[in-house]
Amino acid sequence: MKHLLIAILLLCCLPAFSEDGYRLWLRYDKVQDTKVLKAYKSKIKNVYVPGTSPTAEVLKKELALALKGLLDKDIPFTDNISSGTLVIQVNPLISSPESYEISSNKNSINITGADWPGAMYGMFHFLRLLQTNSGITDLSVTSRPKIKARILNHWDNLDRTIERGYAGFSIWDWHRLPEYIDPRYTDYARANASIGINGTVLTNVNANALMITPMYLEKVKVLADLFRPYNLKVYLTARFSAPIEIGGLKTADPLDPEVRQWWKTKVDEIYKYVPDFGGFVVKANSEGQPGPQNYNRTHADGANMLAEAVAPHNGIVMWRAFVYDSNVPDDRAKQAYSEFKSLDGKFNSNVVIQVKNGPIDFQPREPFHPLFGATSSTPLMMEFQITQEYLGQATHLAFLPVMWKECLQADTYAKGKGSTVAKVIDGTLDNRQFSAIAGVANIGNDRNWTGHLFAQSNWYGYGRLAWDHELSSLDIANEWARMTFTNDNDVVEDISWMMITSHETLVKYMTPLGLHHIMGANHHFGPGPWVAKMSRSDWTSTYYHKADSLGIGFDRTASGSKAIEQYFPDAQKQFNDEKFLLWFNHVSWDYKMKSGQTLWEEICTHYATGVEELKGIQKTWSALSSRIDSDRFRHVTMLLERQRNEAELWRNSCILYFQTFSKRPVPKDIDTGNKPLEYYINIQYPYAPGIRPRW
Amino acid sequence: MKHLLIAILLLCCLPAFSEDGYRLWLRYDKVQDTKVLKAYKSKIKNVYVPGTSPTAEVLKKELALALKGLLDKDIPFTDNISSGTLVIQVNPLISSPESYEISSNKNSINITGADWPGAMYGMFHFLRLLQTNSGITDLSVTSRPKIKARILNHWDNLDRTIERGYAGFSIWDWHRLPEYIDPRYTDYARANASIGINGTVLTNVNANALMITPMYLEKVKVLADLFRPYNLKVYLTARFSAPIEIGGLKTADPLDPEVRQWWKTKVDEIYKYVPDFGGFVVKANSEGQPGPQNYNRTHADGANMLAEAVAPHNGIVMWRAFVYDSNVPDDRAKQAYSEFKSLDGKFNSNVVIQVKNGPIDFQPREPFHPLFGATSSTPLMMEFQITQEYLGQATHLAFLPVMWKECLQADTYAKGKGSTVAKVIDGTLDNRQFSAIAGVANIGNDRNWTGHLFAQSNWYGYGRLAWDHELSSLDIANEWARMTFTNDNDVVEDISWMMITSHETLVKYMTPLGLHHIMGANHHFGPGPWVAKMSRSDWTSTYYHKADSLGIGFDRTASGSKAIEQYFPDAQKQFNDEKFLLWFNHVSWDYKMKSGQTLWEEICTHYATGVEELKGIQKTWSALSSRIDSDRFRHVTMLLERQRNEAELWRNSCILYFQTFSKRPVPKDIDTGNKPLEYYINIQYPYAPGIRPRW
Repeated sequence: MKHLLIAILLLCCLPAFSEDGYRLWLRYDKVQDTKVLKAYKSKIKNVYVPGTSPTAEVLKKELALALKGLLDKDIPFTDNISSGTLVIQVNPLISSPESYEISSNKNSINITGADWPGAMYGMFHFLRLLQTNSGITDLSVTSRPKIKARILNHWDNLDRTIERGYAGFSIWDWHRLPEYIDPRYTDYARANASIGINGTVLTNVNANALMITPMYLEKVKVLADLFRPYNLKVYLTARFSAPIEIGGLKTADPLDPEVRQWWKTKVDEIYKYVPDFGGFVVKANSEGQPGPQNYNRTHADGANMLAEAVAPHNGIVMWRAFVYDSNVPDDRAKQAYSEFKSLDGKFNSNVVIQVKNGPIDFQPREPFHPLFGATSSTPLMMEFQITQEYLGQATHLAFLPVMWKECLQADTYAKGKGSTVAKVIDGTLDNRQFSAIAGVANIGNDRNWTGHLFAQSNWYGYGRLAWDHELSSLDIANEWARMTFTNDNDVVEDISWMMITSHETLVKYMTPLGLHHIMGANHHFGPGPWVAKMSRSDWTSTYYHKADSLGIGFDRTASGSKAIEQYFPDAQKQFNDEKFLLWFNHVSWDYKMKSGQTLWEEICTHYATGVEELKGIQKTWSALSSRIDSDRFRHVTMLLERQRNEAELWRNSCILYFQTFSKRPVPKDIDTGNKPLEYYINIQYPYAPGIRPRW
Repeated sequence: MKHLLIAILLLCCLPAFSEDGYRLWLRYDKVQDTKVLKAYKSKIKNVYVPGTSPTAEVLKKELALALKGLLDKDIPFTDNISSGTLVIQVNPLISSPESYEISSNKNSINITGADWPGAMYGMFHFLRLLQTNSGITDLSVTSRPKIKARILNHWDNLDRTIERGYAGFSIWDWHRLPEYIDPRYTDYARANASIGINGTVLTNVNANALMITPMYLEKVKVLADLFRPYNLKVYLTARFSAPIEIGGLKTADPLDPEVRQWWKTKVDEIYKYVPDFGGFVVKANSEGQPGPQNYNRTHADGANMLAEAVAPHNGIVMWRAFVYDSNVPDDRAKQAYSEFKSLDGKFNSNVVIQVKNGPIDFQPREPFHPLFGATSSTPLMMEFQITQEYLGQATHLAFLPVMWKECLQADTYAKGKGSTVAKVIDGTLDNRQFSAIAGVANIGNDRNWTGHLFAQSNWYGYGRLAWDHELSSLDIANEWARMTFTNDNDVVEDISWMMITSHETLVKYMTPLGLHHIMGANHHFGPGPWVAKMSRSDWTSTYYHKADSLGIGFDRTASGSKAIEQYFPDAQKQFNDEKFLLWFNHVSWDYKMKSGQTLWEEICTHYATGVEELKGIQKTWSALSSRIDSDRFRHVTMLLERQRNEAELWRNSCILYFQTFSKRPVPKDIDTGNKPLEYYINIQYPYAPGIRPRW
């Protein structure tokens, strides 16, 4: 400890320009490879951007900043094309909105957008080529977003706490808005634009009606005006009971004419502040939130009322499928499907149902949600969680695109083989015009935006996949590592390896073999397989793992809850994979695994292997000490050490806890620490971040 | 608005190195005046620091960073003295701890500390000379702190909210400590060391017993270890009921032997983690906090119990005099004096009573606290509030050293003329060895530390005055402006003028002529003279201003609450100044003021003049646009505009409200806006920062 502190003392200080992570992947440091730099300079001598628009202005500003940084040279803007001109323009003949083409010939490089947003995205694509030291001769790129609305969901409260936020507090300083405009808002818009995100929901789905009162709409307007040139549209969350709370009505019944009129008037008012307002996200009748069921109406009744109000303005309603019965169900995994399957076809055309990737709640591994593919007449959008509520929060390195790709590539078999989840949500499976995806943001006011430096890669990766879900996780990891750290190939390889393996490693030391929802209560931090008493049994861990003297796991087969029958028959076969074993089956401790070990031994081995793999990740990182600036090296080093401590907590406590049921010895050579189970059960995190504080 | 937004769009971006205020006054940018730079370079060719210690190490590191920045040149360390050597060393023959001498001759510059902290403070003094472009030939400086314990009080809660915090949330990331050590902690220590602050109370006086459990003490230890080389001692707040809450005892009675033993054992445990732990601050029997009176014991009983526990370790107890009866008193201003005067002489020698500057609560203007000078046998320490709870929070520019000096220079007449408050607290009046001062910190995790860039000057000014209360406010403003902005004399003059006038301007538009405690309820933001219903009447505004058809003001003379009689007779005469008029007197609306106006006209004029003066400050700032970097210029410009809006709210609403009593016309040419009083009364700040959120 003493040595660590001394090392820190020697390293810590205010160097003029510390590597604090604020610049994200938009660093624009000078290209280090002199050959590459020379080639770039010879190809990019000046820039021509004919035409003008607010987006053209921010595009030019970004370009000037980036080229000056990357090429270490002021690149002038001109008004004609000569040798070495980078031309960025709009060609309305390109039909697909937001799309772009990049081509180069001996003379010039041409970035052509279908519209100004497309041109801007094309510019960021081109900058990415430079940032990753890619070749820029003979370019022939065409790109269009596979999904139309690519949205971030902020679970930020008006007091700046963030539900499930682990990177400090909300970047929205509501109290000082509208007069005081934090420069960070602009950098936020730039970062999103650079990865193709085109919408943001500013506040928590557990909504506050104040947000749609004039006092707050004035503040929202400032943000919307600032974001507009970056093609970033503002959405809000609608509190279903707002007509009562701020409208003075007696009811919020969606079929009540007064209520319907109140929402129409309110929506018209919102559009006066924000003419391109995107629409609402609604969490209704879920976890205590009000909703149409309070009035014996359906989710469709509620959604359609709001949809009608925003329709004249081309707004949309994103209605969340994450709902609960007030009665505890036999299997919570079945709930959303049960409620929404029967409503298929009953929603207005500007309603989209927002479905979490899996049927429980953003666990480290879940099968895809059975609603995907199940609603032939209702568009579904994906809700991923970028913030790592169940994946170590801001102290664990876990690269999530790997997990998201697993879901996107899963086959629903809705229209036969190849009916992937990706095709459901991008609209191609059902030939839908509209498509959308949401990611619950991991952004806070921590200097580096995301708490853990590597968590930036999840924001980045979410945006990249939202634009093109066919990108590979490895390519995304590579890009991000190059833009964030260095173009040294061996360093990039090491960092990419750390990222790519990190998710499966985490699954092993947290929830191997299909285990799920066995974390600490409320804050969801650290292990808690022993959590057995909560106000609802489907919030406990024992509800999910069902460990007993015979075995462990949730039987969702025909002999159990039958949840597996919510999937198409061919799709069900995918779940024979051992990685889903305990999700779908209650299995004997002595069940023979493919490895030849018993299930009990296999569980122990997974926990132990997870920790060992993490040590491998630590080792890889340590070896990079001379290749990474000291600020960022130290930041990640400290967090990896914390992660290892926590991974060992998971291993030790889960093995010891499950052993109280299995009554079998832990395979030798597997370390479970030197403390009794009670020690782990007694660990408290009284002020863990991300939950509403209790006073 | 549109123009503003476009201007912002053009200005906002991630320049490689934005002027975000993080570097505080420790910028160390290259000296711009080439003559001065040349002179410095010829005098400082190398550095010799004989001897070693952790403080010597951080001193050397700071010096290397600073000289490289200021002189734009690596200045080598040597191990002997030659021409142009800067020698920094310790000479134990200098008797006063922490003090230093700086001298220079043709050959070398010598900084000699009584100890390593003294040497470090001497170095920061020398760096300040360079930063302000002062001469460094024929130096002959000696300096010693006038007050021994110079402390910051953080009102930070364990969930990172800050009571009365307006610069974001707590910089202490307890959840990720002890493993993750934010580099900001070191920069915090550096900043405090640079202005002579040598102690910090990490958490809120509304204390949490968890803070002294092993889980948190492990985290505290990391901070204490990090701060130690910077001569920054850690103190904690003691929750009086901790023996019950975490000790499992049935009582916290300070005369109970078990309770006394529990505290002794607990304190011994704390010192195992932090061997130089400074001691406790205690808020007891005040605003709902538990204390000795719960057991019919006195404040002395409570304080002495804790004092006994920390005495063997040389710890101290700072016992706050800010207490309330549970019964609402006829005049809250008299409370602390009434309770503590009679306890004079009953406290152990390592107890010091912490007294706020004024008898109410950190108002924009208060007379000094009557306890100062009233306790000949009990040491008192000063509690200033750096965070601007009642002075516009993070949206108003108000340079507080002006206000603090007014208090420090006030004469208590305790031992005849010249018995200033400063002499009471620095110990010279009563020939006391120990002396202390506390400032309630305005630091949060906002990038610029204090929310408002100019609020940095209050942190800075507090530290400078704590070291030497004889420094003038103007000198402090000058120093800070030079170190923070520029050494251009005319710019420094303008900025210093803005700072020096800002406090009186704020008093005029908020609480002129001795008015006090007329702000919004709970959050204390914005005007609220109409606040009349709270759970205690001494929390309302009407309790304090007592406006009625005859006049306005709180009669604290012989005909009223007699609070004035708590002061020595000669001291009372100071309060004849019109600036205290309504603090001590209930005065007729038609009372003739020195100006010849009636009181009513004078009140209106003060409000109006405050706004006009503020517009003058805005104008001065605007004229500096080409002289200040755009980031900081814009930041301050936006906040000044917000401040002007709020000053107008104060003016309009207070004049309209008091007019409902005075029934007299507003003097012509005084603008009160175009809205009725109701409009102002209805303004809400539902999520104003700095109060514990309610759910």
